[in-house]
Amino acid sequence: MPKKKQAETAGPTSYDVASLAGVSQSAVSRAFSKFGSVAPTTRAKIMRAAKQLGYQPNAFARGLITKKSNLIAVIISNLTNLNYPEVLAELTQRLSAEGNRVLLFSLAAESDVDDVLEQVWPYRVDGAIVAARLHDDQIQQFNDRGIPVILYNRVGDVAPSASVCCDSAAGERELVRLLMAGGHRTFGIIAGPEDSYVGEERLEAARRALNQSGIEPFFFRGRFDYASGAEGFHALMDQAGGRLDAVICTNDAMAIGAIDCAKSTYGFRLPDDISIVGFDGVGPATWASYQLTTIRQPVRRMTAAVVAMLLERIANPGMAPEQRLFGGELLLGRSARLG
Amino acid sequence: MPKKKQAETAGPTSYDVASLAGVSQSAVSRAFSKFGSVAPTTRAKIMRAAKQLGYQPNAFARGLITKKSNLIAVIISNLTNLNYPEVLAELTQRLSAEGNRVLLFSLAAESDVDDVLEQVWPYRVDGAIVAARLHDDQIQQFNDRGIPVILYNRVGDVAPSASVCCDSAAGERELVRLLMAGGHRTFGIIAGPEDSYVGEERLEAARRALNQSGIEPFFFRGRFDYASGAEGFHALMDQAGGRLDAVICTNDAMAIGAIDCAKSTYGFRLPDDISIVGFDGVGPATWASYQLTTIRQPVRRMTAAVVAMLLERIANPGMAPEQRLFGGELLLGRSARLG
Repeated sequence: MPKKKQAETAGPTSYDVASLAGVSQSAVSRAFSKFGSVAPTTRAKIMRAAKQLGYQPNAFARGLITKKSNLIAVIISNLTNLNYPEVLAELTQRLSAEGNRVLLFSLAAESDVDDVLEQVWPYRVDGAIVAARLHDDQIQQFNDRGIPVILYNRVGDVAPSASVCCDSAAGERELVRLLMAGGHRTFGIIAGPEDSYVGEERLEAARRALNQSGIEPFFFRGRFDYASGAEGFHALMDQAGGRLDAVICTNDAMAIGAIDCAKSTYGFRLPDDISIVGFDGVGPATWASYQLTTIRQPVRRMTAAVVAMLLERIANPGMAPEQRLFGGELLLGRSARLG
Repeated sequence: MPKKKQAETAGPTSYDVASLAGVSQSAVSRAFSKFGSVAPTTRAKIMRAAKQLGYQPNAFARGLITKKSNLIAVIISNLTNLNYPEVLAELTQRLSAEGNRVLLFSLAAESDVDDVLEQVWPYRVDGAIVAARLHDDQIQQFNDRGIPVILYNRVGDVAPSASVCCDSAAGERELVRLLMAGGHRTFGIIAGPEDSYVGEERLEAARRALNQSGIEPFFFRGRFDYASGAEGFHALMDQAGGRLDAVICTNDAMAIGAIDCAKSTYGFRLPDDISIVGFDGVGPATWASYQLTTIRQPVRRMTAAVVAMLLERIANPGMAPEQRLFGGELLLGRSARLG
């Protein structure tokens, strides 16, 4: 492709533009940077020269000079989880509005993080947002490289780390309290995969709250998807000999699967015959067929916090860690009888 | 952050590694490239030297030398559309398996492409995948820069372009044919936003097929989401004075909204009282509450084709355009009475 070759190997550089415009190279660089300050008349001269020469800024050349790539790595597990598309769309638009680009890494399972970190380092990202399980030594690798990282819906064990979370434990405790007040005594829990940080956090909180009331729930481990919610409902009904008051699902997709199974296989009416609750507040939770009672994560406030905390730390690399914990919002659907 | 500074400004380069290992710089570069060929003993020497020096490949430095960034721009409209998360997850995993990274751009509306192209160029991406409406002059900008681009579910008007599409027109014709054979005569169409390429393609195909049978459908323009599907169902019932045999929705999310409205507001049973069909084959289409009759896009085969076509064109920049059109698969749910 001759055009590409010409554009990249012999194309005009920022120095050519500077020379034609009669300014310094750094002025050209500032003029093409979103936040660079240049006097309006200088900027106009530079833009005229750039246009005349057909100059196009090169992020690689700039990255080598400024040590800033304007790239943010976003590492997200399981994009097909109903909750993540909204998170990713919000993050991408917020980062983009601030002049940053998203380098996306998606994992088939939470535990695949190791593989992608080696792919992240060569791009000299300015920062990272991680919505997947990071071990302490992985957090430490970011810290060692001086790359600010914000954990989304998880916290580090020991390594200093900044994080933004929805308060899973408080949300589950609230659901248990309201279900107990509604008179439920026989419980089942449908949990997510063991390698999910939030899944385990929600499971432990719900189980502990039930145990504190002297209740040992029936238990099924699902995969955070619709099909395993339906499977789980069957399994719990079997375990309980058909007598079950309430099912707590650690995400909405499984709760929706459980509701469909309860209705279509057992002919149950909700919440008269049984209560089912979820967690997340995904779009389908509010659909008329489900009207799920669940805890909605405040995704907009959480993603705004992530981006703000990350940009602060890119500007001030020494900034101390901070953990922000957002309370979830109770969505009162019609899938549960609460007290 | 002293550590970062040290690593980037005074850190070891590929030349330092080459010198210690007693090989050429290009051998080091090949050894760290996924597809570079280096003799095993040479590779071992290089890796030992790199480890000893703490060398980390730098994608910017490599990009300036090799003219390859290994970055693929993925420009996708409206990530919250139920169909896109699966597409994005498949693309990201396939590109990653081939040693490429995804630079993600998400648009609030299909028509925002212009804004992001200026953000794409500085990163010297090796190629691009675009699932948003590109005008001919935008396609030409990729061609002028020698950047291979594959259009997903849309084709260019005039500018030479490679594309992978699901055959929307054939899918809609098939649905109309089967609904007619099922005895339906009074039709409504719920269409997507006007700036959606596939939406308009599906609308035109369905309308033409109906017109050819002498039928003029009632019409509502939605926004490709659940809420506008429900609104649309109300509006069509009003237009039709309550007598409607079948509703064709140009995507599944709107069809699901229409089904919930038909059931909960009108007390309809599907498919006895009315038939509703969608397009896409998203996950919720198969949920027990909907069991939607729809056309499923073969997302795996389509994304595999996109990645293969793109990598071919990166390796052989002169390759002529190719258009691949995949037939959709009829998902026989229970939301429509077909002949």
